[in-house]
Amino acid sequence: MNAFEGSKSIRLAHGAGGILQEELINFITKSIFKKNLNNGIGLEEMDDGATIPLKWKDQELVITADGHTIHPLIFPGGDLGKLSICGTVNDLLMMGAEPLALTSIVIVEEGLKFKTLEKIMNSFNTTANELGLAIIAGDTKVMPRGTLNEMILATTGIGIREKTIRIEDKNLKEGDKIIITGTIGDHGTALMAAREGLNITSELNSDLTVLTPIMEIIKEDLKKNSIHAMKDPTRGGIAAALNDWAKKSNKSIYLEEDTIPIKKEVKAICEMLGLDPFNIASEGRALLCVESTRAHEILMKIRKTSLGKDAEIIGEVKKDHPKKVLLNTLIGGTRFIDMPLGENIPRIC
Amino acid sequence: MNAFEGSKSIRLAHGAGGILQEELINFITKSIFKKNLNNGIGLEEMDDGATIPLKWKDQELVITADGHTIHPLIFPGGDLGKLSICGTVNDLLMMGAEPLALTSIVIVEEGLKFKTLEKIMNSFNTTANELGLAIIAGDTKVMPRGTLNEMILATTGIGIREKTIRIEDKNLKEGDKIIITGTIGDHGTALMAAREGLNITSELNSDLTVLTPIMEIIKEDLKKNSIHAMKDPTRGGIAAALNDWAKKSNKSIYLEEDTIPIKKEVKAICEMLGLDPFNIASEGRALLCVESTRAHEILMKIRKTSLGKDAEIIGEVKKDHPKKVLLNTLIGGTRFIDMPLGENIPRIC
Repeated sequence: MNAFEGSKSIRLAHGAGGILQEELINFITKSIFKKNLNNGIGLEEMDDGATIPLKWKDQELVITADGHTIHPLIFPGGDLGKLSICGTVNDLLMMGAEPLALTSIVIVEEGLKFKTLEKIMNSFNTTANELGLAIIAGDTKVMPRGTLNEMILATTGIGIREKTIRIEDKNLKEGDKIIITGTIGDHGTALMAAREGLNITSELNSDLTVLTPIMEIIKEDLKKNSIHAMKDPTRGGIAAALNDWAKKSNKSIYLEEDTIPIKKEVKAICEMLGLDPFNIASEGRALLCVESTRAHEILMKIRKTSLGKDAEIIGEVKKDHPKKVLLNTLIGGTRFIDMPLGENIPRIC
Repeated sequence: MNAFEGSKSIRLAHGAGGILQEELINFITKSIFKKNLNNGIGLEEMDDGATIPLKWKDQELVITADGHTIHPLIFPGGDLGKLSICGTVNDLLMMGAEPLALTSIVIVEEGLKFKTLEKIMNSFNTTANELGLAIIAGDTKVMPRGTLNEMILATTGIGIREKTIRIEDKNLKEGDKIIITGTIGDHGTALMAAREGLNITSELNSDLTVLTPIMEIIKEDLKKNSIHAMKDPTRGGIAAALNDWAKKSNKSIYLEEDTIPIKKEVKAICEMLGLDPFNIASEGRALLCVESTRAHEILMKIRKTSLGKDAEIIGEVKKDHPKKVLLNTLIGGTRFIDMPLGENIPRIC
């Protein structure tokens, strides 16, 4: 007997704690290479939980949590599986941590095609395997048809970082420079264009990716704490991320409009749909707040990586107008960039 | 402005990364007492993740993951919030760990009443607070009306245990006794009775609870490894849990039908609905596999606790018929108790 037998799609019984559930779990986990951490109990044992034997002294664990609810499950430039790994790993990286392991909760709707599930989970597992990430614990649930649209993945990431690292949202210093590692808004715009069926989408993919290549090349700067804060501008875009920093650090951020990298397709689609690209999610970009004396060199390093060719210094931390983000516009004025209230564009991440 | 303004229910904009999302998060987390662990970065900082400064030497972390999808959200004896804490904490306890912290991913449907959300999250936070558990990281997502039935909570639990503890599913030894800490099937039966609108439900509540009082009283036995395995019989009931043990340990388990504690209401409802109580979930019971010489004393200790008055020794580990669970029945025969295939009773945990 196997999970396919008698059906090409998920049945309620696949979630009910019996033989079929075991088979679903095996189906979901079969392509994972690394199933435990530090030789502890892991996914293979299918026990009530996993163990992580501790072997670190001067480090701290970093923990992040993400619920991934994207629609459509497969989109230009990625899918739910890849998104779940990238989102979680990027959050760990943005804390200055080395990603080690994650837990994965898979919730599927009755009737979901095994083919779709396999595609998503292969993408999830392959992305994890490429990063050497262990998937050490998980859960699966099946919800009756009509009570969930297709599938959700909920992940908790576990990483490790030196205790001396001080990457924090509240850590902005006057004079610091703000770097963005690539163009803004590609992910959210590509998704919305795909949903709206705009032809222009063929030109535009999500920026979805893990930020590891950039983190690798600036490792030394991280250790020396010349990078004060990092954040990936996901939901709410750079407007939300930068306002969050300004507020927590009690500083202002001045942006220069002419330096902010944005693709012409993104600009065009946003204009068409009446959206502000500053509010649109990326899934493979980082904002860095760095010491001004180090900014240029760090920018040059980032530009040398596969992900960073469009990186730019886009602004500066100041003390007037604390808690505000301001934009020096192309036409010469200065205006506030507010925290978005919350656009009605759900399920983009 | 607050999350209630202009609406008594969740809007899509509450999930879009802006001001309304901040307010939703504040609303969800306001009644949590403990928001970090070991003075690390925690929920309060609303950064990309939390940190756990390490201070342990001879211990290992224990990690568990659960997706909670119960319907109805509020049921006789509990609700989704309490279930999420109890389920996660019990999994940590069943690994012999001390629960420390958890991450919490809240996924809600557009239109969910704030009143309902508040009730669930108060229950979640209060139960965590009572246990001294920190909630250190989380995420919130809003799904459009019709794409999710009300609400899901996904939690990852973090605990700590001595490296010397050997509680594992595969650890059953010949001659060991099997203890159940209370009556079987209350949770699943109460839920199904409530769904079916059976009047008898007024007599029957879910057994949902944390197993801490029992774990406290048997702490010494845990340390001495006279307890070989522990498991809470949730999905698939004791049939799934015991078959899992037998299979992983390559042993058989013989049960004595006349010793298995079961409420007459549970028996009656299961007969009425054509269900096998051995396959029905509990959410506040533990199965323990203990050294035979210690079994009676451990049973007596458990019976003294608030949760354990119906505890019984229900079976023994043998070597014939490896990987099988057998039942010596009331009428004199012996039959196999199979791993359930998977009943069509979804969303009970």
